[in-house]
Amino acid sequence: MRIGILGSGLMGGKLGTLFARAGHEVVFSYARSRKKLEKLARDAGGIARAGTPAEAARDADALLLAVHWSRVDDVVKQAGDLSNKVIVSCSLPMNDDDTELVVGHRSSGAEKLARKLRKARIVSAFNTVPSEVLFGVFEARGKTKPSLVFCGDDAGAKEVAARLIRDVGFDPVDAGPLQTARYTEPFALLVARLAYEGEDGPELAYRFEHLSAT
Amino acid sequence: MRIGILGSGLMGGKLGTLFARAGHEVVFSYARSRKKLEKLARDAGGIARAGTPAEAARDADALLLAVHWSRVDDVVKQAGDLSNKVIVSCSLPMNDDDTELVVGHRSSGAEKLARKLRKARIVSAFNTVPSEVLFGVFEARGKTKPSLVFCGDDAGAKEVAARLIRDVGFDPVDAGPLQTARYTEPFALLVARLAYEGEDGPELAYRFEHLSAT
Repeated sequence: MRIGILGSGLMGGKLGTLFARAGHEVVFSYARSRKKLEKLARDAGGIARAGTPAEAARDADALLLAVHWSRVDDVVKQAGDLSNKVIVSCSLPMNDDDTELVVGHRSSGAEKLARKLRKARIVSAFNTVPSEVLFGVFEARGKTKPSLVFCGDDAGAKEVAARLIRDVGFDPVDAGPLQTARYTEPFALLVARLAYEGEDGPELAYRFEHLSAT
Repeated sequence: MRIGILGSGLMGGKLGTLFARAGHEVVFSYARSRKKLEKLARDAGGIARAGTPAEAARDADALLLAVHWSRVDDVVKQAGDLSNKVIVSCSLPMNDDDTELVVGHRSSGAEKLARKLRKARIVSAFNTVPSEVLFGVFEARGKTKPSLVFCGDDAGAKEVAARLIRDVGFDPVDAGPLQTARYTEPFALLVARLAYEGEDGPELAYRFEHLSAT
């Protein structure tokens, strides 16, 4: 697949790198500098290059939206027409201090995004694990895989997201419609709290298990 | 320990039974009928009996609050003075239809409860796994344990909760202050969704793992 990265920071940079290593064609866009994008593309190996958000979006089979919540409007505007695009969003609706969700309870960042981009096909994913765990999970793939929840309203887009989740070493767990982001986004903050406030470091993953399988 | 069960339904009935099997003295209270309480006490084995909420609270080292959110005021009133009591609450702030949380985002059921019972020592726990998984986890204890998150502001009360969590076969995961219930309560609904809407049945547990340990 051809995957455009909108926001090549901690999450976008790492996930784009892993998508490239998994054999996808990746365009990194929207980082602090063009230089950083070029370095990401060089280091990723595989077919990866630096580009603008519009270049990342063009002909993309999937876009990863991985910018800070405050940058969503800007990157979306730069990306251009996103009609019918599969957008896998890991952007949590955080305030500028990254201390709390600005949306919650009876809505979610994912639902707000979907209302903003009515013609795009939104899936919420990759936001419930810390970026620090990604390379380790990718390298360990093949053993018991950690879970990764995702949700969305477009079945085809969810299949794309599930494939990408599998490609980077996780076991995709379909949490239902996009509205479930009301639960997965606070869950993401719970995981972040355990990862960054706990004593054992941020390389934290989770796994849902049916008891018959334990 | 002596443990009073306030609300002997699906969760309270099962957890009280497991607390008794783990060697604690249990008083079951607040079910549809006195008969049900007596049957629970008989079936639990160990030292268990039926009582009123006031009897459950008297001399209790810990109380399990396991009523529907709409019944909290009533059972608390019947229980009497709860000053200095350790209250482990698994009551989620659900609406009457059990379809959604009535509190969320910038508050939580646990925080509302703590404001209601200012002198009690509240821990939020046991609400992030379905009741269906409890007996299986208890019987399987000794192998890799599933996690169970809990949170609260009183260190001593949290130690009591962690011990009870261990006693029924889970690995306690301290999620921090009671405010973290803003994340754990939506997480509970995510788990419920995966348990009850999924294809593999409700015997679902979860485990947080640091990658070095996988």
